[in-house]
Amino acid sequence: MSEGMGRGRLEAFSDGVIAIIITIMVLELKVPHNADFAALKPVLPVFLSYVLSFIYVGIYWNNHHHMLNMTQHISGAVMWANLHLLFWLSLIPFTTAWMGENHFEAAPTALYGWVLLMAAIAYWLLERTIARMQGDDSPLAAAIGRDIKGKISPVLYAAGIASAWVEPRIAGAIYVLVALMWLIPDRRIERRLRH
Amino acid sequence: MSEGMGRGRLEAFSDGVIAIIITIMVLELKVPHNADFAALKPVLPVFLSYVLSFIYVGIYWNNHHHMLNMTQHISGAVMWANLHLLFWLSLIPFTTAWMGENHFEAAPTALYGWVLLMAAIAYWLLERTIARMQGDDSPLAAAIGRDIKGKISPVLYAAGIASAWVEPRIAGAIYVLVALMWLIPDRRIERRLRH
Amino acid sequence: MSEGMGRGRLEAFSDGVIAIIITIMVLELKVPHNADFAALKPVLPVFLSYVLSFIYVGIYWNNHHHMLNMTQHISGAVMWANLHLLFWLSLIPFTTAWMGENHFEAAPTALYGWVLLMAAIAYWLLERTIARMQGDDSPLAAAIGRDIKGKISPVLYAAGIASAWVEPRIAGAIYVLVALMWLIPDRRIERRLRH
Amino acid sequence: MSEGMGRGRLEAFSDGVIAIIITIMVLELKVPHNADFAALKPVLPVFLSYVLSFIYVGIYWNNHHHMLNMTQHISGAVMWANLHLLFWLSLIPFTTAWMGENHFEAAPTALYGWVLLMAAIAYWLLERTIARMQGDDSPLAAAIGRDIKGKISPVLYAAGIASAWVEPRIAGAIYVLVALMWLIPDRRIERRLRH
Repeated sequence: MSEGMGRGRLEAFSDGVIAIIITIMVLELKVPHNADFAALKPVLPVFLSYVLSFIYVGIYWNNHHHMLNMTQHISGAVMWANLHLLFWLSLIPFTTAWMGENHFEAAPTALYGWVLLMAAIAYWLLERTIARMQGDDSPLAAAIGRDIKGKISPVLYAAGIASAWVEPRIAGAIYVLVALMWLIPDRRIERRLRH
Repeated sequence: MSEGMGRGRLEAFSDGVIAIIITIMVLELKVPHNADFAALKPVLPVFLSYVLSFIYVGIYWNNHHHMLNMTQHISGAVMWANLHLLFWLSLIPFTTAWMGENHFEAAPTALYGWVLLMAAIAYWLLERTIARMQGDDSPLAAAIGRDIKGKISPVLYAAGIASAWVEPRIAGAIYVLVALMWLIPDRRIERRLRH
Repeated sequence: MSEGMGRGRLEAFSDGVIAIIITIMVLELKVPHNADFAALKPVLPVFLSYVLSFIYVGIYWNNHHHMLNMTQHISGAVMWANLHLLFWLSLIPFTTAWMGENHFEAAPTALYGWVLLMAAIAYWLLERTIARMQGDDSPLAAAIGRDIKGKISPVLYAAGIASAWVEPRIAGAIYVLVALMWLIPDRRIERRLRH
Repeated sequence: MSEGMGRGRLEAFSDGVIAIIITIMVLELKVPHNADFAALKPVLPVFLSYVLSFIYVGIYWNNHHHMLNMTQHISGAVMWANLHLLFWLSLIPFTTAWMGENHFEAAPTALYGWVLLMAAIAYWLLERTIARMQGDDSPLAAAIGRDIKGKISPVLYAAGIASAWVEPRIAGAIYVLVALMWLIPDRRIERRLRH
């Protein structure tokens, strides 16, 4: 738990955990016993929730990479904030399968959003922990200040969780919307980094 | 999502995902309850499809490595094109098990080819994305122009999918053929690279 | 089995194994068939034991990282002492699931503590093996001398195993206590390393 | 498939696959439904075969590391010889579980030895492929000439396979013997490498 830890091994470990999370989700696609396409029908909702979760985990991997690029040293607090984020991400395969196998019913759809919300909070905590270690004039602290997506996402997840009890399809649409929001490249940041 | 991302972590993450894909397929080889060799008989078609998929994933890992060797920087678009490829590869364990457990019947054999086709298209998209970033006079753009195997493969996969409905064994033979085509080393390229 | 092995690949391999251990535990969270929150009730004890084990594996990864930071070369003996540690850690998913699925009954709770005890002993053996290779005046040998947590933990695990037969909740409380003890950062060491 | 590939990514990929193989074996330790130690009894033979296979995979990881340390460049042939070795290693979780769940009966014990034999042959092929690339006066070619363990092991595996049909316990004893033979450090080589 020293300030002297480099970021290399933290990245490698996080990459390993995220790679496993994104891949073991596919194990929840249970192989049907029949050999016609009709047998795939019950797999379809699990597949759709797999696609959504694959994109979410991909977004987290991408953002995680960029955030760590802005730091050199890792304190014990950063390490545990990172493990805390990985913990919530590791629950995504479970909530994905529960939501998919129950055809996007209220409770599983709400829980799916809740784990996304907790992951977003964990990500924000990790970001704050790194920024605090670096001081208020660090580039990361400035980036957090401008991070509009990061501030809107938790609000949208909460809206998704609430609307799951009214109509799960609204919740699903909100989760897709947040994913799309993150998928669209942030031209301003890319330009800034190029200079 | 910056142009400033190095290729190291993209390679490490892709390696992790591909290593997991190639290994979890073996979990579909269900351990038989009896202790004689006759009990292995139902495992045999799953084993054969495992061998074929192992070779395919190995080919993708190999080609992926060489393609990334030709680039230094990774843009957000490249990162998502890469995740898109990993997505289709991650479905191979599912289609492998479905095809194997149903003894190469029409629908599973067609779906197996379809996932291979989508992976080939995703690979081509990734290649184009990197080449566009580098400009038309890049070594990668030149390599794509000469890439005959990459152009024939999708046509053969499509032929495999179509023939699965007539006689799945023809489809299987075509998939084996494409794998062999990629396994045979490309002496011309090796020679070129040595100079 | 040479003294000439660098520590990089040992770290990478250990990271891979630990990342898989920490992630496959989540596969024991069996997806319930019903879609209401009541269906999650039987998953809850498995979830709680998952949280505890996640923290334990995180602690081991963290400490493992710091210990290896104090060495440059790896002998054959170190490599096997490291594999021995990974072996006991690899049993944590099994004992976690057994304890969780049986609602913290005596035998599973005792076995859970026993695997923690064996992992602690394996960690101590690895530490001793590296220190012996480096000589008695090495920084690691000095660190072991001061390592109070490392000396108390096995005693507490043994107390946990014994008390599981009287009241498993006492054992559970002890395991949580040991985890908390390790989670609290060791300010003295961090300060020392900063200088 | 170029001679220009560095060995770093081959090592990283192999480490990933071997780390997954050594860890997913533990998933075959099926969690018993009862909470007393008697419920662990059927798990015991699976556990014992897990211990043996863990050691074997550890030995392969160790030897693989040392062999690759003696080479800098990787040809297409080396890459496929390496994937061929990983293929046979990937079957160890299956044969381990089949042997363990059937209490070391004849057929599973023979198949277990057969996969070990194929892995040994694949290892030898990989070694020869690297040595051929480097030329007959390479240090690796010299090391192969002196490699007595590598020459005895396949003979012992074959003896194990044959004796499994007479008395599986003899086969088991032979597999344990080969593992011990590899575990004992090779002082001569360590000394040579130190100079």
